[in-house]
Amino acid sequence: MQISCFSQALKYTELKQKISEMGKDDVKLLSMWASPFCMRVKIALVEKDIAYEEILEEDLMNAKSELLLKSNPVHKQVPVLLHEDKPIVDSTNIITYIDEVWPEKPLFSSCEYEKSRARFWADYIDRKVYPAGHAVWSSKEKAEVEAAKKEFLDIMFYLDGTLGDKEFFNGDTFGFVDILLTGLTSWFPAYEKFGGFKLEDHYPKLAAWITRSWARESVSESLTIPEKITNFVAMMRKMYGIE
Amino acid sequence: MQISCFSQALKYTELKQKISEMGKDDVKLLSMWASPFCMRVKIALVEKDIAYEEILEEDLMNAKSELLLKSNPVHKQVPVLLHEDKPIVDSTNIITYIDEVWPEKPLFSSCEYEKSRARFWADYIDRKVYPAGHAVWSSKEKAEVEAAKKEFLDIMFYLDGTLGDKEFFNGDTFGFVDILLTGLTSWFPAYEKFGGFKLEDHYPKLAAWITRSWARESVSESLTIPEKITNFVAMMRKMYGIE
Repeated sequence: MQISCFSQALKYTELKQKISEMGKDDVKLLSMWASPFCMRVKIALVEKDIAYEEILEEDLMNAKSELLLKSNPVHKQVPVLLHEDKPIVDSTNIITYIDEVWPEKPLFSSCEYEKSRARFWADYIDRKVYPAGHAVWSSKEKAEVEAAKKEFLDIMFYLDGTLGDKEFFNGDTFGFVDILLTGLTSWFPAYEKFGGFKLEDHYPKLAAWITRSWARESVSESLTIPEKITNFVAMMRKMYGIE
Repeated sequence: MQISCFSQALKYTELKQKISEMGKDDVKLLSMWASPFCMRVKIALVEKDIAYEEILEEDLMNAKSELLLKSNPVHKQVPVLLHEDKPIVDSTNIITYIDEVWPEKPLFSSCEYEKSRARFWADYIDRKVYPAGHAVWSSKEKAEVEAAKKEFLDIMFYLDGTLGDKEFFNGDTFGFVDILLTGLTSWFPAYEKFGGFKLEDHYPKLAAWITRSWARESVSESLTIPEKITNFVAMMRKMYGIE
């Protein structure tokens, strides 16, 4: 059954009925426990009340599964969402797809201009936050760490500004931009530890947004605990001869 | 009048009527003649029959206009679309916005899975094609040029594969991925000249797609002629001491 294309001809309620008759949504997530990009997809699935089966890649560094290589032959990376066996790749793309196929509890404003703002910040986060954080923990010399820390905080400056006094980036509800950034925050305590700073000292509103987001059930269910990530980063630092 | 958010409450036909009563859509494009990212937005506007005013940045290297700095304070780059004076930035984001606000002649398939495939290739093009092309024309040493050329052609390999025997990336109609890539092809003859290769020799189907796309009125109206780009690149190569 071709759910996605099939849905063109069916109203959402009819589609839901069809799926319900099948027992459950046929959704699988190829995932890896430390990947912040996988975590954000898991948050979106829980926010949307979509039951899914998680298929963990055991050892991405040495051996990628046949299923992963077949599902994402260009990038060969997790996450991959398999919906009715059809692969959807790239976390931001997957979350957009989830919102289109399961439109209840929308992740975007219905205003096209607000949607374009959300896509702008999504792109900003995707291109900047993770690479800047990587530079923080993977730098060795003091000057290099300081430069990486400054770059990371400069990037956060704009995110703090666009959050402002709102509850969430999306306004009153936890939406697209909130989900995309929250996935990445599981790594923030590692950046703070190895960069020697506290985000809260620079951007208290952004730090409060993280606390608020982590308190959500969808997030606490989906996020690998930050301590485990920090230990993982410490191990990689040893492996790469940083300390 | 707040067109974008206003449209939530109006049906498309009613909205079109409103706009028509106003004389024309209030659409302006902040643009620069050599930018392939501006060209792709212009193609989308023409494909959608949207009248717009082009506001050219005269000298981006030395002085950006106040309007640009105010409209895109984070990236400070063209293109910016001003719709009812509200700025939308980043070309891929702008084209998605255009398709949402003016839904006639849709740029995407209505199938969510096909849409996710289009977004995947859009992201692939955005992250890879322009930087790889830049490396081709800005390399100096022979080995460096050869490596850049190989990288560029390796990237084209996947695009050629996904185009296959189809008329357009979107299938029978010229759609989202076609528009995103066509904008960039205005620079391809410069890559060929300074990289010492012909795309056609490696990927004849992709080269035929370029010829087919350039024959469209929306494209010929919007694309800066490749000779002008090639001269511009030759000037930059002299400026940077490459030749």
